[in-house]
Amino acid sequence: MGSLGKVSFVGAGPGAADLITVRGAHVLAQADVVLFDALTDPALRALAPQARWLDVGKRGFAHAAHQTEINALLVRMARRHAQVVRLKGGDPSLFGRLEEELEALAAHGIACEVVPGVTAALAAAAAAQRPLTRRGRGRSVAFTTAMTREGELHATRSADSEVFYMAGRQLGALARRLRAAGWPADTPVCVVSRAGCADSIVSSHRLDAMSPATVLHAGRPTIVTVGFAATPVAPASKTLTDAGQSAGKMPAPV
Amino acid sequence: MGSLGKVSFVGAGPGAADLITVRGAHVLAQADVVLFDALTDPALRALAPQARWLDVGKRGFAHAAHQTEINALLVRMARRHAQVVRLKGGDPSLFGRLEEELEALAAHGIACEVVPGVTAALAAAAAAQRPLTRRGRGRSVAFTTAMTREGELHATRSADSEVFYMAGRQLGALARRLRAAGWPADTPVCVVSRAGCADSIVSSHRLDAMSPATVLHAGRPTIVTVGFAATPVAPASKTLTDAGQSAGKMPAPV
Repeated sequence: MGSLGKVSFVGAGPGAADLITVRGAHVLAQADVVLFDALTDPALRALAPQARWLDVGKRGFAHAAHQTEINALLVRMARRHAQVVRLKGGDPSLFGRLEEELEALAAHGIACEVVPGVTAALAAAAAAQRPLTRRGRGRSVAFTTAMTREGELHATRSADSEVFYMAGRQLGALARRLRAAGWPADTPVCVVSRAGCADSIVSSHRLDAMSPATVLHAGRPTIVTVGFAATPVAPASKTLTDAGQSAGKMPAPV
Repeated sequence: MGSLGKVSFVGAGPGAADLITVRGAHVLAQADVVLFDALTDPALRALAPQARWLDVGKRGFAHAAHQTEINALLVRMARRHAQVVRLKGGDPSLFGRLEEELEALAAHGIACEVVPGVTAALAAAAAAQRPLTRRGRGRSVAFTTAMTREGELHATRSADSEVFYMAGRQLGALARRLRAAGWPADTPVCVVSRAGCADSIVSSHRLDAMSPATVLHAGRPTIVTVGFAATPVAPASKTLTDAGQSAGKMPAPV
């Protein structure tokens, strides 16, 4: 079938085109063909105007048959082109169905690389200015997809805080499952939609009063953070900060 | 004290300068002053040659007094400059001690923004080509710092897979703690050091035979992935892939 090209899996980041990495942008600039998901920002096209762009559909909702077609298309493109880019929303290694595509390419001896990206949970924490790890509390954080392949909803209580991907459609059901899993009624919940974009929305809730979130974030890609990481950061006592200011052990300019 | 500038917390990514986001690079290009940690790539300086660069020390090992000084320095710089960048290795919201700095700036009414970055766990998964989430298994992954502020080592078994940050110095102790926490002796472990850099090293181990990793990754920033996400991706059966290839429902070029 001729010589084989390389497939680069590139994390596009969580939405806004400028949250791709510099390395990802460079790889796109060299692409012959780009396979992308519907969720990636159309503005990314400007980074690879020379490439043929193929829409391979919605991430997170692709069923098994569809995934098999994407795998086969990747193999076919790598046989025809030197540089194939598989652009994935967020980061390829996290809820990106990367495993299936790597398996298919390995079966055909096609070289791959993975360029990591900003995952939506981190963009949500940045938009809300609510760090996922905190002093003393929040030593661990779990990233979970609320939705299984079979369309079932899962909820757990394992780490200090939990971040749920793809939960926007079922916020009410997720809240009920979380309560059943042992999270108290007054657990803080932070909901962020279109994190990283200019029109992102951040809202705060108690676990037993999530209804307003359903309306506010309807139809938008949504990240739900539960637990201590959902609480806003409070201003420090000025006294403490000013004490530090007089300590006088500042680093010298470099 | 005059007008107040803005402080932008920017995730530098896990090591290599080109894993910063395009947005992060743009913010650096506008910086008057950059406060950075020792772990960030010196090549990032090229993105802000106009700025004054201040080294505020090693991330992950700063004790409380040191943190207070950084907070005070941030406030002082924001009073003198229009655009202050606080550059943090990886992503600011994850093990970045962002909380303390946001608190201090909020106390002085200083405007902040957070530009997310690629966290080391994602760069490690990319380097190893081992996705953190997998079909059926690996529906959740927890990110944990192995080291507490007091220098204690913690290990848990909560999510399907666990990724430990800052565990390089105590791989043997971490393995023992993980076994005590219920992980079986033959649990797969993937150790990646300097993830995202040209000289990254990836090694595979069983949980009860981690000694070689200690030597291999000595003195390098290290990420330890435990559980199903640590297993290599196997090539797919060719038959399955080829079946998909003949399905004929490929997307049309856009």
